[in-house]
Amino acid sequence: MGADIHRALLADGHLDRLHTVARVDTAAPITTLTDTDTATSPGTAPASAARLAHAEVLFTHWGAPPLTEAALRRMPRLRAVVHAAGSVKHHVTDAVWKRGITVSSAADANAVPVAEFTLAAVLFAGKRVFHVAREYAHTRTPPSLLPYYRGHGNYRRTVGVVGASRVGRRVLGLLRPFDLDVLLHDPYVDPAEARALGAEPVGLDELARRSDTVTIHAPQLPETRHMFDDRRLTLLRDGATLVNTARGSLVDTDALTRHLLTGRLNAVLDVTDPDVPPAGSPLYTLPNVLLTPHIAGSLGNELGRMTDWAVDEVARYARGLPFAHAVGPEELGRSA
Amino acid sequence: MGADIHRALLADGHLDRLHTVARVDTAAPITTLTDTDTATSPGTAPASAARLAHAEVLFTHWGAPPLTEAALRRMPRLRAVVHAAGSVKHHVTDAVWKRGITVSSAADANAVPVAEFTLAAVLFAGKRVFHVAREYAHTRTPPSLLPYYRGHGNYRRTVGVVGASRVGRRVLGLLRPFDLDVLLHDPYVDPAEARALGAEPVGLDELARRSDTVTIHAPQLPETRHMFDDRRLTLLRDGATLVNTARGSLVDTDALTRHLLTGRLNAVLDVTDPDVPPAGSPLYTLPNVLLTPHIAGSLGNELGRMTDWAVDEVARYARGLPFAHAVGPEELGRSA
Repeated sequence: MGADIHRALLADGHLDRLHTVARVDTAAPITTLTDTDTATSPGTAPASAARLAHAEVLFTHWGAPPLTEAALRRMPRLRAVVHAAGSVKHHVTDAVWKRGITVSSAADANAVPVAEFTLAAVLFAGKRVFHVAREYAHTRTPPSLLPYYRGHGNYRRTVGVVGASRVGRRVLGLLRPFDLDVLLHDPYVDPAEARALGAEPVGLDELARRSDTVTIHAPQLPETRHMFDDRRLTLLRDGATLVNTARGSLVDTDALTRHLLTGRLNAVLDVTDPDVPPAGSPLYTLPNVLLTPHIAGSLGNELGRMTDWAVDEVARYARGLPFAHAVGPEELGRSA
Repeated sequence: MGADIHRALLADGHLDRLHTVARVDTAAPITTLTDTDTATSPGTAPASAARLAHAEVLFTHWGAPPLTEAALRRMPRLRAVVHAAGSVKHHVTDAVWKRGITVSSAADANAVPVAEFTLAAVLFAGKRVFHVAREYAHTRTPPSLLPYYRGHGNYRRTVGVVGASRVGRRVLGLLRPFDLDVLLHDPYVDPAEARALGAEPVGLDELARRSDTVTIHAPQLPETRHMFDDRRLTLLRDGATLVNTARGSLVDTDALTRHLLTGRLNAVLDVTDPDVPPAGSPLYTLPNVLLTPHIAGSLGNELGRMTDWAVDEVARYARGLPFAHAVGPEELGRSA
């Protein structure tokens, strides 16, 4: 893993429990595995042959170097990779799967804070809390209760969930205690399963037309790029809110910005395309937009959840049990 | 009820169901009952003797005139008052209880949106979402992930709930799916009940010292005025968030404002003291404060939930069943 995340995990005591379930190589974190990595991370030397020769399990995190064929040749005893963060796309290569090395990821743990952020966004969107707060700061006079608030509220409001992904499924679960009608669009989920998840299965255009709030939890794939383009954004109801905690490229940001500038739509955007909007973008200041810099995922003490889940996986490995959160090559194509 | 709320309920179709469970006097809403009311609501005439003589159940809402002895003498057949809103303090007088008239209130339904607002506030407070969003709008550069976000997050964070009121109990229920440690202070709840509610019972000072987020759900009483005074606010941890959706007078607003100005504390304030802060108050613009104009309670479509629950009560009355949400004189002293 990267040296910065290693320092952060140590400082918060997150790695202490690892010593209770495994013999841990306590030298500095391994940030480079081969001479090729050294070329891309100048100033760092690859891990010594002796350190790698013993490794049976790699405990990885953000900034892990790629597990190439050359790297794996240096770790003849490697049986498992336990990733204490979300996607393993950046370091787990085909060579890992070919060698039959098992891989676990904390993507499920990373889905928890994203779903929590989404729930809060949906509840506040229903009452248009951000917009009302900004108006109040401007007028410094409370709006007249009855005429102003027509159409606000979270009673029998319709929420459209796009994608029964790890996050999408957690969002569906978290939405259950509320008086909300939930729609789900996911081409990989059959209608009976959608209903078991508490949602009415619908096509994406119907979801756009019927929802008061739409929340996107689809993977980033060539075919999902601009899933919410100008045509589909136009289908959304006047006053609807779009919540995006998934990937910026799923929405045509320019088209969305036009709908937000007219005040027709509202948005909670934790991701945008590009990742950071240009300094002149109206997204930073529009009263009907809450814009955050990709913070819905694990941050601060939430890194501890991913570490705890990953340490549990190492403990399962030590007892000869299969991983609770195994990932395989087939899953990567569909994950965010 | 007041004419404005009557119009709003009619416009949204909320009153339609009432006709399916009762014979409804469909004349204009009764806004004044006696000549005394007329004096306080000039330009309106008291309801005619004929209308009142038949009334067996009053269906009341915001703006209902007081049910004084004089008013009740005009309604000899009155057996029940069904209030489709929260507190009945403003119109149910001692004369109502003395006559043995039963009273139902939709205070439980009104607690739902307050608890939902609180949940969203707690989840966003844990990640300091408002503060991060405002900083991002200012810097237009994402903060560096690891050093910036130390101390943020909703994993094993401690939430202190002050008061197991209608709202407080709902908040405790809604907090269950999350990895949060919950403390409860309520002098009327014994330790076993607190634990059954999913919380650790503690004194108020201990709650203040240990919580990352404190949310207030206590009633407004002489002895709860300035429950969070300067001394107790000083007990709160650096970086803690105070959420108040109850009553402004429970917090010493001047003292809180000083703690907010230094950046030591954060706040989500749906109520303040006075109700609307003076135009020059820093509460409107501080980046660590979300200030809203008393919108956590039922608004917009949430009025429909109260109406639906109240219509259910009329249906129960018609079938000879006791009210599901009866209120009595003893409860009023402790309710917000």
